[in-house]
Amino acid sequence: MINTKVVANTLGLLLIVSGAMMLVGLPFSFYYGSDDVIPILAASAFTMIFGAACWGLTVHSDRTDIGKREGYLIVTLGWITMSLFGALPFVFSGAIPSYTDAFFETISGFTTTGASVLNDIESMPKGVLFWRSMTHWIGGMGIIVLSLAILPILGIGGMQLFVAEVPGPTADKIHPRVKETAKRLWFIYFMLTLAETVLLMLGNMSLYDAINHSFATMATGGFSTKQASIAYYNDQPYIQYVITLFMYFAGANFAVHYFFLKRRYDRVWHNEEFRFYTLSVLVVGLIHTVGLMYNHGLGLERAFRDSMFTTLTIVTTTGFVTADYESWAVPLLFIVFMLMFTGGSAGSTAGGIKVVRLLLIIKNSLVELKRLLHPRAIIPVRLDGRAVPQNIMTNILAFFIIYMLVFVSSSLIMTLIGLDFISAIGATIACLGNIGPGLGSVGPTANFAHIPAVGKWFLSFLMLLGRLELFTVLLLFTPFFWKR
Amino acid sequence: MINTKVVANTLGLLLIVSGAMMLVGLPFSFYYGSDDVIPILAASAFTMIFGAACWGLTVHSDRTDIGKREGYLIVTLGWITMSLFGALPFVFSGAIPSYTDAFFETISGFTTTGASVLNDIESMPKGVLFWRSMTHWIGGMGIIVLSLAILPILGIGGMQLFVAEVPGPTADKIHPRVKETAKRLWFIYFMLTLAETVLLMLGNMSLYDAINHSFATMATGGFSTKQASIAYYNDQPYIQYVITLFMYFAGANFAVHYFFLKRRYDRVWHNEEFRFYTLSVLVVGLIHTVGLMYNHGLGLERAFRDSMFTTLTIVTTTGFVTADYESWAVPLLFIVFMLMFTGGSAGSTAGGIKVVRLLLIIKNSLVELKRLLHPRAIIPVRLDGRAVPQNIMTNILAFFIIYMLVFVSSSLIMTLIGLDFISAIGATIACLGNIGPGLGSVGPTANFAHIPAVGKWFLSFLMLLGRLELFTVLLLFTPFFWKR
Repeated sequence: MINTKVVANTLGLLLIVSGAMMLVGLPFSFYYGSDDVIPILAASAFTMIFGAACWGLTVHSDRTDIGKREGYLIVTLGWITMSLFGALPFVFSGAIPSYTDAFFETISGFTTTGASVLNDIESMPKGVLFWRSMTHWIGGMGIIVLSLAILPILGIGGMQLFVAEVPGPTADKIHPRVKETAKRLWFIYFMLTLAETVLLMLGNMSLYDAINHSFATMATGGFSTKQASIAYYNDQPYIQYVITLFMYFAGANFAVHYFFLKRRYDRVWHNEEFRFYTLSVLVVGLIHTVGLMYNHGLGLERAFRDSMFTTLTIVTTTGFVTADYESWAVPLLFIVFMLMFTGGSAGSTAGGIKVVRLLLIIKNSLVELKRLLHPRAIIPVRLDGRAVPQNIMTNILAFFIIYMLVFVSSSLIMTLIGLDFISAIGATIACLGNIGPGLGSVGPTANFAHIPAVGKWFLSFLMLLGRLELFTVLLLFTPFFWKR
Repeated sequence: MINTKVVANTLGLLLIVSGAMMLVGLPFSFYYGSDDVIPILAASAFTMIFGAACWGLTVHSDRTDIGKREGYLIVTLGWITMSLFGALPFVFSGAIPSYTDAFFETISGFTTTGASVLNDIESMPKGVLFWRSMTHWIGGMGIIVLSLAILPILGIGGMQLFVAEVPGPTADKIHPRVKETAKRLWFIYFMLTLAETVLLMLGNMSLYDAINHSFATMATGGFSTKQASIAYYNDQPYIQYVITLFMYFAGANFAVHYFFLKRRYDRVWHNEEFRFYTLSVLVVGLIHTVGLMYNHGLGLERAFRDSMFTTLTIVTTTGFVTADYESWAVPLLFIVFMLMFTGGSAGSTAGGIKVVRLLLIIKNSLVELKRLLHPRAIIPVRLDGRAVPQNIMTNILAFFIIYMLVFVSSSLIMTLIGLDFISAIGATIACLGNIGPGLGSVGPTANFAHIPAVGKWFLSFLMLLGRLELFTVLLLFTPFFWKR
């Protein structure tokens, strides 16, 4: 049987952490004199009291009893409850009166999707808007990973939680102990966010906007403090280049950053995924540059900037916008659509299928052709010089296929809700891939406000499914998960 | 090294068979007095003489030397040369003056795609039009399978050829000897074609139209003798129901027909793919029936007829048209689009991914979730009560993924050729899936005449790729295929 006590206990802890994080933006409320102090305090208190109650009532639960099932359950329910309570500052402050909309915005934040229902971002109270960016930052590296780093008690059984929240196919061991891994990951994450904030301020961005945009960049989230997103800075190339660069960092495996800081450059360069990621971004970016110059008459610098920004914002599933890619020539738009399925590197904050999976899938396709000629030989797929075990390869192939099946059936559901073909596939991949802007009526110059409530709840589910890489959530819908 | 002599020798034999088949429609030329007798005779003679020369010059080649490589090469080149020569009756008669168009029409026929460049089918000379339908019929069961059945000499090394032309994942052994299997398959195919012809004539269709439509139905091809396709018979429900029924037969595994004739009903009913195929068609057909009644105000009979016909014409990749599905409500159209990826059963004449692959892919997805909870257990996927070997499962997963990669990259190429997004994906899946009509500018009420020449050659390649189920053709593009 599933140990529900330890599940409730851990959820309580996560809510306490989550409620405490709501307070981080209060200094900005005071500084800007926005009238959201009381609502934020109330939301935070409500969340923490509820969390403390959950934790207190189950304090004697046995944490060594966290198995696979408990791990998957805690992570899925953790992300859901965190979003249910995270919506409160929006509702209490009246910034987003509809709870459905507030929940959509919150889970879009935590899952680093960045799909928004807001039509007038600049008029939002500053504290609430900060919390919106904060949800990105918490979700980017993961609430479990954060809690593992700061709460010693989670160390017990922590590996099961870590695996359920960070289910990537590659295990670049940073440290044998999961708590130390979590600490190092958050340290790198924090330092990169700090570095981007400073660089943005050097480009004359205010501290407030700089922190918000850094949160959204490093989490590959995409919420901006400007209604026009990063197109607001179209006359400030420096700012757009800084954000482009940090999107690139955020979409790379954080183990690569770690080894870089440790000066283990061999580990950086021998990481095939990192090379493939870097090369693909450059190649696609240059194709788009040529396309924008040739088809749309842009100058070299602007074409290069728009195309590198758009390539990275889609590949890393950030979802910032500087250019309306839907107005691009059909082949260029088609490439953008294909990139929506790529995602960043495993071990990054990005969503999507992930570069390493696609790399292995392409390699396996070639190997499969070889196998036809030599049906009795066992020919493995190799990555970073090592053979990939067959069960991991099968898992990756299954992941890709389930992803496609979910994409297609969810698109069908979106057409039933009333969306046209293009908007339906655009909304689905934008949420499942944790990107943000999609195509058609949810394209880069539009938002999700007009989607019917049932559609918003369904898309929220897709965001969670994508962020936790399918299996963690889907397992809960199988009968055998609940059997003894 | 690849034994090129035996390859050339076999290609010669295939051309002789192919050239002889061109003569079958001549009686209709005489009967209708169409002026295509001389062109057809010339094309046939040219083909047979060329084939005989190929065969004669290599008559001392060692047929026991047909290995995997020779098998894949013979089949791919066989289908290409057959189409190159099969285009001659169209060109010689002036019915299709452009060789590109004639080649496109021919390979579309042989691969049972049914994508057409003709704008005025009723004015075509009857003999040439018969050859057009004949290409379907030859291609449906396969030229290799046909040649195996009638040419004893091909029996040596025949298994390699059979596997390369009929690469389906399931091996329902009809007979241990490949020659006997080929004979039985062609016998069933012939009898079903005959039965449909008789039934259509009972509905007052002329012998000529009945044979042509039966060829196109049983091959899941889709070429009609009417410009309006089967919509021509919208006031003759009987004819449309007969064609619907035989599309259903053509999309089923012919081993199922064989066991049915042998009264081995257990083998019929225990075939999971057959059950899944039948059930899916019924469920989707009924959903469409309700949709057409509710959204478009059709009466029950007409809604049922249109929806069952459209479901089967797409699932079996036949491509006949009775209703303009592009004018249907978005969710109904979306389902049609999804069906374009399904394909019929393995061992049928249909193209596409094939029902059994999808069935196994869905099963594997569920099993993969189970494997997460029990990472050390080896949990196989089961079909018809037997465990599917891991290497076959991996092959199926790889097939699906390569299919998707080919679909996406080919769609991108079609946008570069100048098609809009919808028409590009429509044309690609219509040809890769051997369906015929697609979406947009190549939709059910349009045709492929307007596609630029380079696009027609590329789509021809996709038809072949789809018909030979990817691997047979793709292998030829790998460097290791040509290495010793």
